[in-house]
Amino acid sequence: MERTELNTLGEFGLINRISSKFIATNPETIKGIGDDAAVIDVGDKYMLISTDMLMEGIHFDLSYTPLRHLGYKAVAVNISDIAAMNGIAKQITVSIGLSNRMSVEAIDELYEGIRFACESYNVDLVGGDTTASRSGLVISVTATGFVDKDKISYRNGAKPNDILCVTGDLAAAYFGLQILEREKQVFLANPNMQPELTDKEYLVGKLLKPEARTDIIHELHELDVVPTSMIDISDGLASELLHICSQSGVGAMVFEDKLPIEDITMLTATEFNLSPITAALNGGEDYQLLFTVKQADFDKIKNLSDVLPIGYITQNPEVELALKSGGKAEIKAQGWVHLNN
Amino acid sequence: MERTELNTLGEFGLINRISSKFIATNPETIKGIGDDAAVIDVGDKYMLISTDMLMEGIHFDLSYTPLRHLGYKAVAVNISDIAAMNGIAKQITVSIGLSNRMSVEAIDELYEGIRFACESYNVDLVGGDTTASRSGLVISVTATGFVDKDKISYRNGAKPNDILCVTGDLAAAYFGLQILEREKQVFLANPNMQPELTDKEYLVGKLLKPEARTDIIHELHELDVVPTSMIDISDGLASELLHICSQSGVGAMVFEDKLPIEDITMLTATEFNLSPITAALNGGEDYQLLFTVKQADFDKIKNLSDVLPIGYITQNPEVELALKSGGKAEIKAQGWVHLNN
Repeated sequence: MERTELNTLGEFGLINRISSKFIATNPETIKGIGDDAAVIDVGDKYMLISTDMLMEGIHFDLSYTPLRHLGYKAVAVNISDIAAMNGIAKQITVSIGLSNRMSVEAIDELYEGIRFACESYNVDLVGGDTTASRSGLVISVTATGFVDKDKISYRNGAKPNDILCVTGDLAAAYFGLQILEREKQVFLANPNMQPELTDKEYLVGKLLKPEARTDIIHELHELDVVPTSMIDISDGLASELLHICSQSGVGAMVFEDKLPIEDITMLTATEFNLSPITAALNGGEDYQLLFTVKQADFDKIKNLSDVLPIGYITQNPEVELALKSGGKAEIKAQGWVHLNN
Repeated sequence: MERTELNTLGEFGLINRISSKFIATNPETIKGIGDDAAVIDVGDKYMLISTDMLMEGIHFDLSYTPLRHLGYKAVAVNISDIAAMNGIAKQITVSIGLSNRMSVEAIDELYEGIRFACESYNVDLVGGDTTASRSGLVISVTATGFVDKDKISYRNGAKPNDILCVTGDLAAAYFGLQILEREKQVFLANPNMQPELTDKEYLVGKLLKPEARTDIIHELHELDVVPTSMIDISDGLASELLHICSQSGVGAMVFEDKLPIEDITMLTATEFNLSPITAALNGGEDYQLLFTVKQADFDKIKNLSDVLPIGYITQNPEVELALKSGGKAEIKAQGWVHLNN
C-alpha cells in the first residue's frame, strides 16, 4: 500500500484534504470548517462552536508552565475563537487525558485555572470527559457562544479600502517563550541557577496567560460597529492576514512603523539578536484580534485605546509590508512550522 | 506539598470533585455536568452537547482496530449520548492528535470512517483541530444536537412502577474484546497463525462498530412517547442503571431471564468460562439505550422489535436482580475499573 508521509502535506494541506471530503447537509449548519468557529442557526441567533486540543510536549512544557495558567489559557484561546466571530462565549466542555503521575493536587491546580477563566469570561463548564493517558497531559476544550445574525464577522468579508486593525501589541508571547526556553537550558545545565526573569514578566505573562479580547467585542457591540472580517492571532499576524485576504479575495498593505510592539519586546529582540518585525509577523500566540472595518465605522472606534490601525485592504491581491526604509516586502505565511500553536 | 494519588479517587470521584467547584451562571445553561449531554436553551429548542476523548492504548488497540471502524465509532458514541437525551445529533467537531508514524493514507482511512458515520447519522462535520502527538493517536469528538423542550429525557426522571427497557442485546461487545485480545496473544506468540474469528463476526462487529440507536429515538418521537429517564450503556447495564436510580431517588428490579443476550454470546461466555450475566451487567461498550417509561406509554411501544422490557422501577431504593433460580442479588457498580470505556 502506498505510504505518504504526513510532513509532505503540512497542517493546512491536511485540513484542506479532510474538509474537501465533507459536505454539510443540515440546513442549520451555516458554516463548517474554515473559520475561527463553526456557525449553527438556532433560531433568533447563531450559535458558534470552536475547539482546540493542547498536548504536553507539543503545545506546552510542564517544566515551566504552571498548571493554573495552563488551565486558564486552554479556556481563553477557545473564547478568543468565539470572539473572532464577533460572538460572546457562554459554555465550555473540557476533556482531559491524565497520566498516572499527575496527583489529585495537580489536577486541582489545572481546574483552578479553568474555573478562574470561567469566572473571568462568564462562561459555564457544562461537560467533558476524563480519561487515562499513556503519554502526558492532553486537554481538549470546546467553547460555544452566540452572536446576533446581523453581527457575525467571517474571515471572508474584507473589502478594498477597509481599515486593518489589531487590538494590542504583538510578539511579546514569542519572546516570552524564548526566555523560558533559555532559562530552562540554563537550569538543566546548572540546577542551582535561579531563572532570570527580572523585567521579563510582561513577556512571560503574555505567553503563559493570554487574554481573549472579549472586552473589544463588547465595545464594538456598544458602538454598533460590525467588522467586515475578523480572525484571532494564534499563528502570527502574517498567517492570519493571509487567511483574511485569500478568503476575501483582496490584498493588504501593512505599515511596518504601525506594528504595535512594546519597548520591552524591542529590547529583548535585540538581546536575542532577532528581528521584532519577523516575530510580530510569524511569532504567534498573541491572541489579539485582527479585523477590518469600513472607513466610516473606523471613525466610530478610532478613539478606543485598544483599536490600533496597522494598514488597509487593497483590491490588488498582494499582501505587503511598507517598510520604514521606504521599500516594500511581501508578507508570506510561515507554513507548517509552528512555534507553539 | 501534599500528594494524593489519582487512583485513590476513582473516575466518578474525580468528576464529582471537579464539578462541585463549578456553578453555572448563564441563564441559557439548563444542565451542565452529570447527564449524557449538556443542555443549553437556544430559544424554541434545547441544544445538547456531548464530548468524548479516545486515546490509543487506553480506549483502542490499533493492532486489531481498523482505522475506518475507529473513526465510525468515535462519532457513533457521541451521537449515542445525544440520543440518550432523546435528541437528534446534527453536527460534530473532531480534533485529532497524530503521531508522525501515521501516514496520510492512514489518516484518510480514519476520516473515511468518520465520513461514513456522518452520512449514516446525517450529521455535519463542522470543525476540529489537528495537532502533532508524541504519544499515539488521540481523537476528541464533540457532538451537538437538538431536542424539543417537552421531549427531553434526563437521568433523574424515573418513577416507581415505570417499565425499564433496553434497546438490544448486551455483552456482545465485551466478548468481542475478549476474542480480539485472545487472537492478539496467539498472533504475538506465532505470527504465522491466522486469527480465528469464524462465527464471531457478530461479537467483534459489536465492539468495533457499534451503532447509536437514533432509530429508536425517531420511533419514540413518532409514537409521541417521552421516556421518563434515559442513558446510553457505555460502562455496562449495572453502572448506568445505578446512575438512573441514584439520580431519580428510586430503586429497580431487573429480571435475569429478561436480559437480552444472543446465543453466540452465551456460547462464547461458556468458551471463556465467564458468566454472560456478569458481562451483561458490567461489560460495557454496548451503546444500547436504557430507559424508563410510564406503563401507559409502554403499551404504545411494546410492539417495537427493539424495545425490550427487563424490569421495573421501585420506590424501595434497592437495585436488584431477580435470579432465574428464585433468589435476588444486589446490582453494584463496577466502580473505576473500566474495560475499555
